[in-house]
Amino acid sequence: MHHAPLGFFDSGVGGLTVVRAVQQLLPAENILYLGDTARLPYGSKSPQTIRQFSHEDVRFLISQGVKAIVIACNTATAHALPELQKTYQIPILGVIEPGVEAVLRDPSAQRIGIIATRGTIASHAYQHALALRKTGLIIHAQATPLLVPFIEENWIDHPATRAVLQTYLEPLVAKGIDTLMLACTHYPLLIPILQQVLPPEVRLVDSATTCAEHLRSNLQALHLLNPSDASGKLQLYLTDLSEEFEQLTRQFLEKPAGRIQRAVLGAQ
Amino acid sequence: MHHAPLGFFDSGVGGLTVVRAVQQLLPAENILYLGDTARLPYGSKSPQTIRQFSHEDVRFLISQGVKAIVIACNTATAHALPELQKTYQIPILGVIEPGVEAVLRDPSAQRIGIIATRGTIASHAYQHALALRKTGLIIHAQATPLLVPFIEENWIDHPATRAVLQTYLEPLVAKGIDTLMLACTHYPLLIPILQQVLPPEVRLVDSATTCAEHLRSNLQALHLLNPSDASGKLQLYLTDLSEEFEQLTRQFLEKPAGRIQRAVLGAQ
Repeated sequence: MHHAPLGFFDSGVGGLTVVRAVQQLLPAENILYLGDTARLPYGSKSPQTIRQFSHEDVRFLISQGVKAIVIACNTATAHALPELQKTYQIPILGVIEPGVEAVLRDPSAQRIGIIATRGTIASHAYQHALALRKTGLIIHAQATPLLVPFIEENWIDHPATRAVLQTYLEPLVAKGIDTLMLACTHYPLLIPILQQVLPPEVRLVDSATTCAEHLRSNLQALHLLNPSDASGKLQLYLTDLSEEFEQLTRQFLEKPAGRIQRAVLGAQ
Repeated sequence: MHHAPLGFFDSGVGGLTVVRAVQQLLPAENILYLGDTARLPYGSKSPQTIRQFSHEDVRFLISQGVKAIVIACNTATAHALPELQKTYQIPILGVIEPGVEAVLRDPSAQRIGIIATRGTIASHAYQHALALRKTGLIIHAQATPLLVPFIEENWIDHPATRAVLQTYLEPLVAKGIDTLMLACTHYPLLIPILQQVLPPEVRLVDSATTCAEHLRSNLQALHLLNPSDASGKLQLYLTDLSEEFEQLTRQFLEKPAGRIQRAVLGAQ
């Protein structure tokens, strides 16, 4: 069981930012990643549909013999995590708790901006988890649905991307945020341009690193860490294959991805 | 059979631009529209996946008793029309032939720009159909994948939309196009801003009106026109329901859409 892979899923390839962080912290772990590229994005779809897709993603990963599952997608975590944890016996982790932890690591964080897909923002999952953990926080949430398309087109440093970011971020900056939570696994790729657009005192937080730490302590507690000295393997499954997705995969992993296989989901 | 509805399908609600044109030309026809909002967009996905989804869309419409089907989506027409026509006995029409006809209505059209999703451009369906119909045309095709997200966000008149359009259109304008084919059923909503961004001599062409005419002559030939004097009804089915989709539906139809039902596709 220790050698069984960890299962990750996301609507697309954005969740690979979490995989990269896990590979750095837990290099022995084998990883099986499922990106539901045939039905992406999840962020603009209804809670009901996101839950249905998430069930199918989890069932695919379980059928592949994974030992634990990470939902490497904020929207799916926001809408489906509690239900999935109740339905399946396998350990399932999301990215929201680690994100909240990452925000609160700086005790001076007081005025928190959150940017995410429309689905994640509408779920109020971050707002709720932050308010539960610390009273008196001032939270400003902003849905930023156009960012994923720009990232997927690799138009990171383009005047249009800046114009979009300025429109989205101006209201948050005007409210004096000290922290900006990047509550979508795609957004770490925007960090260089966000640093240019935002005032220097705003701290940028993403959940990839804390998610990896969270995963390590969970696996430790469950005696599921892989004790091997060898480097783990990465297996990639996408529900739709195309040249663009392969290119994007390289970009998110910052290295070649190897052979990508096509996954056919049960109810698809 | 004459009173049976016409079936339309699209990846989302963009195809309603075609429905509007058909309602104007053939007001007696009952219309059943299916938008596969749970899996949109199609434009960035692989030909194999687009064909699979299109088969499921067609089977849903047939199960609802439609008398003929219009693929109100350029990407699905480009990748799936011939296969669908071979597989099913019901008359099936696409938007590409009407689009090509609309371009060639002006006999002086010589340098044709085409903007569309990545899938439509990569299929070469428009380039091929134009070249077959008229020799000597100079065709410049440009994939414009960020336009649909902007339209779906209703950011039509925004500096970022202009910046995106300028980047996409500059190479076409530099090549001296006299005609720009809007080869995606979402794009008619961009016509006001396109008229500002493009030189005034560039003619804008979309396939909605010619598609409606094409449909009328086909129904006439097949003796399938609805002879009723009453106004036809519009039934809307989406595979994912959300407030955003309902709002978008109103925007595309330019009137309230009535009750929208959720469609569950066979293999979904």
